[in-house]
Amino acid sequence: MARLNSHYLKLKAGYLFPEINRRVQSFADANPDAAARLIRCGIGDVTEPLPASVRRAMHEAVDEMGARESFRGYGPEQGYAFLRRAIAENDFRGLGVADDEIFVSDGSKCDCGNILDIFGDDNRIAVMDPVYPVYVDTHVMAGHTGVGNDAGLYEGLVYLPCTAENGFVASVPQEKADIIYLCYPNNPTGATATRGQLTAWVDYALANDAVILFDAAYEAYISDPAIPHSIYEIPGARKCAIEFRSFSKNGGFTGVRCAFTVVPKELECTAASGERRPLHPLWNRRFSTKFNGVGYVTQRAAAALYSPEGQAEVAALIAHYMGNAAILLEAARACGLAVYGGANAPYIWVRGPQGMTSWEIFDKVLGEANVVVTPGSGFGPAGEGYFRISAFNSRANAREAASRLRALAW
Amino acid sequence: MARLNSHYLKLKAGYLFPEINRRVQSFADANPDAAARLIRCGIGDVTEPLPASVRRAMHEAVDEMGARESFRGYGPEQGYAFLRRAIAENDFRGLGVADDEIFVSDGSKCDCGNILDIFGDDNRIAVMDPVYPVYVDTHVMAGHTGVGNDAGLYEGLVYLPCTAENGFVASVPQEKADIIYLCYPNNPTGATATRGQLTAWVDYALANDAVILFDAAYEAYISDPAIPHSIYEIPGARKCAIEFRSFSKNGGFTGVRCAFTVVPKELECTAASGERRPLHPLWNRRFSTKFNGVGYVTQRAAAALYSPEGQAEVAALIAHYMGNAAILLEAARACGLAVYGGANAPYIWVRGPQGMTSWEIFDKVLGEANVVVTPGSGFGPAGEGYFRISAFNSRANAREAASRLRALAW
Repeated sequence: MARLNSHYLKLKAGYLFPEINRRVQSFADANPDAAARLIRCGIGDVTEPLPASVRRAMHEAVDEMGARESFRGYGPEQGYAFLRRAIAENDFRGLGVADDEIFVSDGSKCDCGNILDIFGDDNRIAVMDPVYPVYVDTHVMAGHTGVGNDAGLYEGLVYLPCTAENGFVASVPQEKADIIYLCYPNNPTGATATRGQLTAWVDYALANDAVILFDAAYEAYISDPAIPHSIYEIPGARKCAIEFRSFSKNGGFTGVRCAFTVVPKELECTAASGERRPLHPLWNRRFSTKFNGVGYVTQRAAAALYSPEGQAEVAALIAHYMGNAAILLEAARACGLAVYGGANAPYIWVRGPQGMTSWEIFDKVLGEANVVVTPGSGFGPAGEGYFRISAFNSRANAREAASRLRALAW
Repeated sequence: MARLNSHYLKLKAGYLFPEINRRVQSFADANPDAAARLIRCGIGDVTEPLPASVRRAMHEAVDEMGARESFRGYGPEQGYAFLRRAIAENDFRGLGVADDEIFVSDGSKCDCGNILDIFGDDNRIAVMDPVYPVYVDTHVMAGHTGVGNDAGLYEGLVYLPCTAENGFVASVPQEKADIIYLCYPNNPTGATATRGQLTAWVDYALANDAVILFDAAYEAYISDPAIPHSIYEIPGARKCAIEFRSFSKNGGFTGVRCAFTVVPKELECTAASGERRPLHPLWNRRFSTKFNGVGYVTQRAAAALYSPEGQAEVAALIAHYMGNAAILLEAARACGLAVYGGANAPYIWVRGPQGMTSWEIFDKVLGEANVVVTPGSGFGPAGEGYFRISAFNSRANAREAASRLRALAW
């Protein structure tokens, strides 16, 4: 008698974004006229065309695949040397990251989920609240939690509240945690962590033999020169941190699919025997066994982002989306609401009026402004009462959404 | 104190193909002249150019990504409707497979590994011996086995010996198994299963509430009209089988990365509560949570394979590789060795001379013929004494490899 993984049955409702899609679809079906005016500032999906340098590289790579001499079949599971080198040299210059510590994948969401494979089932997991739902749901699915309550908190996880009081940066907890998820610039709050704050986390991890899973998917949006882009800028991080990066939000690759994970060779964990062992060979083995690498054309696309032309195009994309962020942030502020983020991140985190829940705000903004935002409570109970505005849009849409938000009566 | 997944430490040596690469590299370093003559008939990697229809579709899709109006960001995690429909209509015509039972992924190896996520940890797993190593290693990594012995067998798994006596088709076991891996046409033996043999397995699965994981990555190589291409040709299979398919070996997509899995909605398993629940929502949830879909350009590439031009190109690729198979099969037979497969599959499975181990044969063929084959024992103890010749090559290389094999003194 085959048994299914019953831990899945603990998951609350749908994953946030499918649930939003369901509500939007339902609204659109009922209001066809309003549906035509819908502006989506919900999911953090890029809207601008793929850079010219990337498209050129893809065309060239497709042509290479058309001749036997230059055809590429299976590549190295971990990524082609040309891309791993470009990443190490450009993104981690001076930080001591070796080419073979970089594992090229098809997405940070995948990596954040798959990384659980190489850890034991008996770790104490800490996540921020509000939190990117994938961190939590993957642990629920793996049986690392108890049941969830109505607010969406699961037994057995350590939640690190991120509030206006602490600037949405999680403080080091009193209790012990073995694996800690940190995401900076943060999704959903748009907060960034200072060098001092990250140093406190690295020191905590080193003192407790803990591992930091550092999600830096939005690092390209940092404009403040004082804010670290990588956890490896913090001394000691190579002994305690894995970093996730993505081409989704800098190169506009959400529909191309390429990302990478850094696993330093110094990073060790404790085996059941009590012996300390490096994680790098485990992740490498997972890649060899359960993955076949990213397609050649896609890897050439990613490498093109590191060319001088590609770098300029990335800078232009970031400037575009951050221009939207400034417009939307001002609109939310003009409503008299408290606004956060939007300075070194493409997300604006807005405190709704007292007494309204996040989903009430979502429904109001959808119904009255025909703008889709993301309800803060979808990211955890500490997000209740907040909503997230994504700056990923055309400039025209950002301006129109801003204008409609300003017109809302709260 | 963070703990790693100690089950990884049970894994034997490297995954087979990295180990072969290591030996070949070592030989090449020591014998630079011979290295220049090397012909690889080891890993099953395609060699022929990507079809013109596929390249044209990729070029068009890249161009679409260059305009805001046609740009695609995140797609549905499960795959675009255009591709799911093309698959259902072409590959499963008349078999009742719905579009939304098809989940488009970046590889069958990934799917075969990831499918474990939705099953409980207390199932009894049956695999064929010899076996595609991924089926076994993923269960070792998940802690579903005990330790392995020197022959590569792990405690806790049910091994189904496939030998010359049973035509390399696993027989239904006396003991109970909950999850059964079947791969036909088979990798590595090239054997196919008849309708009667597959019916016996479906009947077994239905009688035992077991699930069949049917790997049909090589179905395009079937030329015998009596042999089923899909497990869903067998009555009852929709209640007990998941099927894996890939574009790697029909469209030559090993470097493009696209595959899919079929999970019928009728397929149910038992939850910890004893209740029976469908697996489809669990796999769907896994896709939404731990995967972000296959890139748009890649999905357009796959869809092109279903166009009339694409179908003709696939047929030509299959004819090419099967032409190689005939040449290599004859060469092995001319050596006086017993040969199997190679008729409805791109692999030839050869019984080496009595007394030689698979790795001894591997070293001899590498050293004397400068041809890389795959040692049968790498697929499990029942493969000891055998080796696999892959037909994936240019015609010139296949002819040259055949000529060198014929010249070997055994």
